[in-house]
Amino acid sequence: MAHYPWMTLLTDYGLEDGFVAACHGVASRFGGGTRVLDVTHLVPPGDVRRGAAVLAQTVPYLPAGVHVAVVDPGVGTARRAVAIEAGQSVFVGPDNGVLSWPVDELGGPVRVHELSNDELWLHPVSSTFHGRDIFVPVAAQLAAGLPIDAAGAPLPPGDLVRLPQPVSRISGTRAEGEVVCVDRFGNLQLSVTGEQLGRLGIEIGGDLVLELARHRHSVPYRDTFGSVGQDELVAYVDSAGLVAVAVNRGDAARRLGLPPGARLRIAAGTR
Amino acid sequence: MAHYPWMTLLTDYGLEDGFVAACHGVASRFGGGTRVLDVTHLVPPGDVRRGAAVLAQTVPYLPAGVHVAVVDPGVGTARRAVAIEAGQSVFVGPDNGVLSWPVDELGGPVRVHELSNDELWLHPVSSTFHGRDIFVPVAAQLAAGLPIDAAGAPLPPGDLVRLPQPVSRISGTRAEGEVVCVDRFGNLQLSVTGEQLGRLGIEIGGDLVLELARHRHSVPYRDTFGSVGQDELVAYVDSAGLVAVAVNRGDAARRLGLPPGARLRIAAGTR
Amino acid sequence: MAHYPWMTLLTDYGLEDGFVAACHGVASRFGGGTRVLDVTHLVPPGDVRRGAAVLAQTVPYLPAGVHVAVVDPGVGTARRAVAIEAGQSVFVGPDNGVLSWPVDELGGPVRVHELSNDELWLHPVSSTFHGRDIFVPVAAQLAAGLPIDAAGAPLPPGDLVRLPQPVSRISGTRAEGEVVCVDRFGNLQLSVTGEQLGRLGIEIGGDLVLELARHRHSVPYRDTFGSVGQDELVAYVDSAGLVAVAVNRGDAARRLGLPPGARLRIAAGTR
Repeated sequence: MAHYPWMTLLTDYGLEDGFVAACHGVASRFGGGTRVLDVTHLVPPGDVRRGAAVLAQTVPYLPAGVHVAVVDPGVGTARRAVAIEAGQSVFVGPDNGVLSWPVDELGGPVRVHELSNDELWLHPVSSTFHGRDIFVPVAAQLAAGLPIDAAGAPLPPGDLVRLPQPVSRISGTRAEGEVVCVDRFGNLQLSVTGEQLGRLGIEIGGDLVLELARHRHSVPYRDTFGSVGQDELVAYVDSAGLVAVAVNRGDAARRLGLPPGARLRIAAGTR
Repeated sequence: MAHYPWMTLLTDYGLEDGFVAACHGVASRFGGGTRVLDVTHLVPPGDVRRGAAVLAQTVPYLPAGVHVAVVDPGVGTARRAVAIEAGQSVFVGPDNGVLSWPVDELGGPVRVHELSNDELWLHPVSSTFHGRDIFVPVAAQLAAGLPIDAAGAPLPPGDLVRLPQPVSRISGTRAEGEVVCVDRFGNLQLSVTGEQLGRLGIEIGGDLVLELARHRHSVPYRDTFGSVGQDELVAYVDSAGLVAVAVNRGDAARRLGLPPGARLRIAAGTR
Repeated sequence: MAHYPWMTLLTDYGLEDGFVAACHGVASRFGGGTRVLDVTHLVPPGDVRRGAAVLAQTVPYLPAGVHVAVVDPGVGTARRAVAIEAGQSVFVGPDNGVLSWPVDELGGPVRVHELSNDELWLHPVSSTFHGRDIFVPVAAQLAAGLPIDAAGAPLPPGDLVRLPQPVSRISGTRAEGEVVCVDRFGNLQLSVTGEQLGRLGIEIGGDLVLELARHRHSVPYRDTFGSVGQDELVAYVDSAGLVAVAVNRGDAARRLGLPPGARLRIAAGTR
């Protein structure tokens, strides 16, 4: 019986090659019966920030276990590989920030070890596929019961690479934020919370003004997409607790031309 | 041991976000060991009809279990959420028609309960992600052995929302139908059966005439794609028992410009 | 307990329909508890060569088991269906070459049986979905412990259809090869090995010259993508042991305009 019944796997490997399957196969070899739950493998190539955001928002709903995230444009270079204990789980991946938001989501790093014990790796180790050769073999052995300190030398948690937090503040009568994620539906998730809007006097049922670089949009603030007419803009608090902007049965990212990282401001509607 | 060893999951959530993984995680928490088989998550956003068609054609080959379908453009509005017993299985999803064809495929609804017992939900319940917060938690508990009448108030099966059946009839010397689904290969599945063609005297080995709005195509009616030359049109009875039109090693939907729902007529060939 | 705890499944069925789920469902019915690991279902429709390449490169990392590959443009025609014992595994699929490279990867065919025993099939058998009706049911029963000779009549291994090997040779001072695969990242995997380059005096740390039909490119030969600057071309030995060409954080296939099968030559750099 595996110590952790579950591993999870998030990568930018895509689904058209055999990369993900090779990782599953290696997990079956080293994992002592642990099962692998795929978070997503469609992180855009090398997009560390999106990988971090997706895993951070999903991990509260995943089973406790060993969470592997491999978005690793620096594979084979000097960047470190790490295992991080947080909450009831362990995170494994490159130390490039992809784990920082997910680890914070579970309460922050408790213990950190560099993956320096190469006896745990799958040899010969390629220089371009550490998911298969280092991250998953080590993660699977951790899931099977290996203590985290066997993975390698301890590291001070403060030495971990961190992604900057998205801008999110109240400035006068406006909330300033940015687009955190665009999801499959084209919904724009913002780095602004409903609580922040409340401090500006913006309540569900009213309107808000979305101020972009060149345009201003008056947008109803409601419970859900379906609260407005088809093709209309709507703001709501999304399933991760963040304010989001959607077009009911449409694509807000395309309508507004906003990519992840785009800055915006929100003010109370004048109505 | 779960009462149903299997749940299945069909959504329009896509694979690039963490939505599907969150549902799997929640299923692992509430499901008492039930396993989740993904039907597809690439239903076009909000396309209730396609979700219904894919699940209806697939469910005869799925293990008996709890089948969850979430294509739910009205999430968070007044549309009901339901559990429907049919055959040896239970279906869970929004009452917007997405379950109607799949339930019919297993013999029609035997018992229906509204998902009104909020003690079974995952709190706090978001207003936009009922897959994670209502449908999957309830489905997983049903899979784990909870009786369906614990899900909420009973509903008369006749109150369920139904999708209209696709047009499919014999009219004089022609079969009238429509495109039900376009699959990955661009094959056009029609709402016409081989039995209907037989009544018009159209038999495998002969030809048929496909009458579209502006064009007529003489098409050989054969066993399989490979029975005609490369790039040629062919009609056949597909794996769901419906007449389909393909281009051998090509894309019939693109060739003929026919989307799902397009109407057409079929007559016997003149040969 | 299944004889093989694992089946694997590679197809060109895509993920937007219910085809893959139907195969999983059928495997659960016939497999006696065997689990199904998806290799990929995004092989381009009918691309036998790519299916063979992906499975050949992945299978060394998969658990021993029954490996099913269905890329089958000739479904329903006279092409044979086969089960092939190789190494500790059994391969099942159409005899059109898709299994040839993967079987070689595990040491070549030991025993071959035609899938002629229709008592093992799922009836009624469609003429276009043998994955669901023949390959997976037979494979699942083999996984559950059925001896391979129960699948049907034995065939001499020499009768199997084989894909031609990609061109790969040393000619004078040049290595001649072709593009085997393009992966999600746009990396070009070549039919040339690091050992062949070594024979031409090309060593990691030096440069090589890539000679295409109309262009020549001087390319650094390094350990990994990240060894060169962003947007620069780099050659390296990839995770399958083949020389590959990438653009660091970019798409080499698009940059160089090379599809799978494109021929090229490599010479030592003049530096």
